[in-house]
Amino acid sequence: MSISKQSELDQLEAVAGNGLINRRALIGRGIALAGATTAGAGAAFTSAGAEPLPVDPWSLAIGSPIPAYETPSKYEKHVVRTLTNPSHEPRTSNARTPHHLLNGTITPNGLHFVVSRTGFPDIDPAKHRLVIHGLVREPKVFTLEALGRYPMESRISFVECGGNSAPLYNKDPIQANVQAIHGLVSCSEWTGVRLSTLLEETGIDPKAKWFLAEGADAPSMNRSIPIAKALDDAMIALYQNGERINPSQGYPMRLLLPGYEGNMNVKWLHRIKLIEAPVMAINETMQYTMRVAGPKSWQFYFPQEVKSFVTHPSPGHTLKGPGFYEISGLAYSGNGRISRVMVSADGGKSWAQAALQEPVLSKALTRFRMPWRWDGQPVVLQSRAWDEAGNVQPTRAQIVAERGEPRANLPVTAFPMGHMNVITSWAVDNKGEVKHVYA
Amino acid sequence: MSISKQSELDQLEAVAGNGLINRRALIGRGIALAGATTAGAGAAFTSAGAEPLPVDPWSLAIGSPIPAYETPSKYEKHVVRTLTNPSHEPRTSNARTPHHLLNGTITPNGLHFVVSRTGFPDIDPAKHRLVIHGLVREPKVFTLEALGRYPMESRISFVECGGNSAPLYNKDPIQANVQAIHGLVSCSEWTGVRLSTLLEETGIDPKAKWFLAEGADAPSMNRSIPIAKALDDAMIALYQNGERINPSQGYPMRLLLPGYEGNMNVKWLHRIKLIEAPVMAINETMQYTMRVAGPKSWQFYFPQEVKSFVTHPSPGHTLKGPGFYEISGLAYSGNGRISRVMVSADGGKSWAQAALQEPVLSKALTRFRMPWRWDGQPVVLQSRAWDEAGNVQPTRAQIVAERGEPRANLPVTAFPMGHMNVITSWAVDNKGEVKHVYA
Repeated sequence: MSISKQSELDQLEAVAGNGLINRRALIGRGIALAGATTAGAGAAFTSAGAEPLPVDPWSLAIGSPIPAYETPSKYEKHVVRTLTNPSHEPRTSNARTPHHLLNGTITPNGLHFVVSRTGFPDIDPAKHRLVIHGLVREPKVFTLEALGRYPMESRISFVECGGNSAPLYNKDPIQANVQAIHGLVSCSEWTGVRLSTLLEETGIDPKAKWFLAEGADAPSMNRSIPIAKALDDAMIALYQNGERINPSQGYPMRLLLPGYEGNMNVKWLHRIKLIEAPVMAINETMQYTMRVAGPKSWQFYFPQEVKSFVTHPSPGHTLKGPGFYEISGLAYSGNGRISRVMVSADGGKSWAQAALQEPVLSKALTRFRMPWRWDGQPVVLQSRAWDEAGNVQPTRAQIVAERGEPRANLPVTAFPMGHMNVITSWAVDNKGEVKHVYA
Repeated sequence: MSISKQSELDQLEAVAGNGLINRRALIGRGIALAGATTAGAGAAFTSAGAEPLPVDPWSLAIGSPIPAYETPSKYEKHVVRTLTNPSHEPRTSNARTPHHLLNGTITPNGLHFVVSRTGFPDIDPAKHRLVIHGLVREPKVFTLEALGRYPMESRISFVECGGNSAPLYNKDPIQANVQAIHGLVSCSEWTGVRLSTLLEETGIDPKAKWFLAEGADAPSMNRSIPIAKALDDAMIALYQNGERINPSQGYPMRLLLPGYEGNMNVKWLHRIKLIEAPVMAINETMQYTMRVAGPKSWQFYFPQEVKSFVTHPSPGHTLKGPGFYEISGLAYSGNGRISRVMVSADGGKSWAQAALQEPVLSKALTRFRMPWRWDGQPVVLQSRAWDEAGNVQPTRAQIVAERGEPRANLPVTAFPMGHMNVITSWAVDNKGEVKHVYA
């Protein structure tokens, strides 16, 4: 980068401390941002004849055959979910989405997060049935083929485990990357039949205030859900990003409760029973009951709270010297659309508003972006999100004050505290290395 | 379905011939739509005790382990791209998206269509370079890592081969499914760097009116593109539905020209040269030049015209008796958003307006849906789309009148006529079988 260019870059309109830049100031300035190298002699490149481009070996060979179903390049073998139970022991398995290696807002189906008690059941779709019964006028059984005839809808929606980001409650900041800390949230275009459409068929007894959703997996994953959600946006999801949902997402069908805690989006769904009161299943009395300060616990809290985190840069990335970078990350809320994301490069002393990638959809991951010029000195990066319902992402100190001091350091795989939506802080040191800190 | 229910269904508000129904008329009527079966004795199901649900074998076994990168269920092995060159002979390969087996608007990465001259090159992303040169102030070389520092954007965009739907020009209607006829269009969320951002770095000589985009594949796929597109929405795409783009989509980078003919979206992009006039590459003088009536040919036509087709039901599907079905399909335009889709069940005599799945995005696939009650008699299903630029999808007769009578029947794999965006007609016979017809 020439000195005059660097000087121009220094003069870019700052919008907050440590190099956050007004996005509009970038446009039309002809400024060298990211240190691309100048290519040989300009004259040689503007000649009409043969250009002195490097000839790469792959340009000289016949390519590989196009497969019927394609998977990523062999150079992307590291872009995988991390597994907490790779030996398939008889306990829960988590598979986490590698957000530091992805971009955009859609999670590819191969990398959607999973929490499962016993892996995934091997369900024959021709034999699978969905039963709707209980406090209905007429109980019904639906085959996959029958469901395929109903009016469908598609919606881009995130699903997040209630235990995602739990490591942020740890006493000391765990040294782990965004995949380990925030990898239990993903976002897909889901297509299926509204549950309310099927309840038109069965009728609803006015006594029904809740419904039980139950999976066909061996542990019979089940949850009680208020009937209002069934009549709002609950969906029997059959397709994910265009194709049939993957085995560990509930093939051949799952419940989608946009914005609600992940485990309530019951996978391998085979039964919905309309009921008067919650069944007090283990997944609502113990497993997804939250310990808080004092003798009380929280039960039946449904939407995932507003949250955001920076994915680029994040731990595992190393900045290659001072200059321009884009800070980007993900924001979402179980209560509607993201209305605003603020970014700080000085640990929360000053903030600037990030750009939100359109379309900003309700209960979907939203990508935010912020131009940044790093001067090579240590900084602390943070993001903070607001949703259209008026909720704001809390600081860690606020949550600790509300729920009590953490008792001990806990392993990454533990579930010490659900619904941790606090601000995440990444410290960049003067070598460009990124670490998780509390700030 | 009980007689009283059938009677109610008969009374649903018709909006066009042969059973097209007002969508709003469906809501809140408690009408049995799709023939779900009544489940045993209601009393047994409302008991609080053990329900008489079938216990399926997969509910009794420990599931399969969660993989690090997941692929669809073994029961979905038939959901693949069809390959025109499975033996990888030294000629073009097409891989077509199975739209009759998908739903929603996003195409999963494994099933995105491909047209390739020699398969896909095996590109080492660490060694790949993008050069921008020619009529610039300062030529530049970009590594993948350098590109990762620039401001990015995401957009959901279709890509369509100029030869998609070419079989509709055939003299007689080919007996093939929607995959064979319309399978060369797909839609992804693409993320990358705007080409205009990189041209800010290199500067643009005012003499530059076009740019040449060239791939690193053995045939050096190349096209000349007006500079206006570079300054509008052209993107150097690095990610597809969140992950790095697939090998046959141009890994590690491709040009994305939203709405423009597929081959112009140059894959394995390694060079952009700013130029005064088109280079008259084979892909613009012969390969993608369109023969029309008389001695003239069309060259340099860029946007894919407004189009739609019904995917459900379509050839290969069989309707299981009279009753309710949802007609759905895909609409899109290279000139902006879809503004309207009309559906006919009587071969174009009467039409009703379909619902468009929100969000309706510019130059993206848009799913349309229409409720339909089939009475068991033969019908002809059609769809017709309009875009916000005021374009309307033509009838086949209009295009034949404009371009001349087809000379012969041609195999599905031929490219007799590009940019065939005519109305597609599916005939449903009284057995529920669906066939391609001209109507």
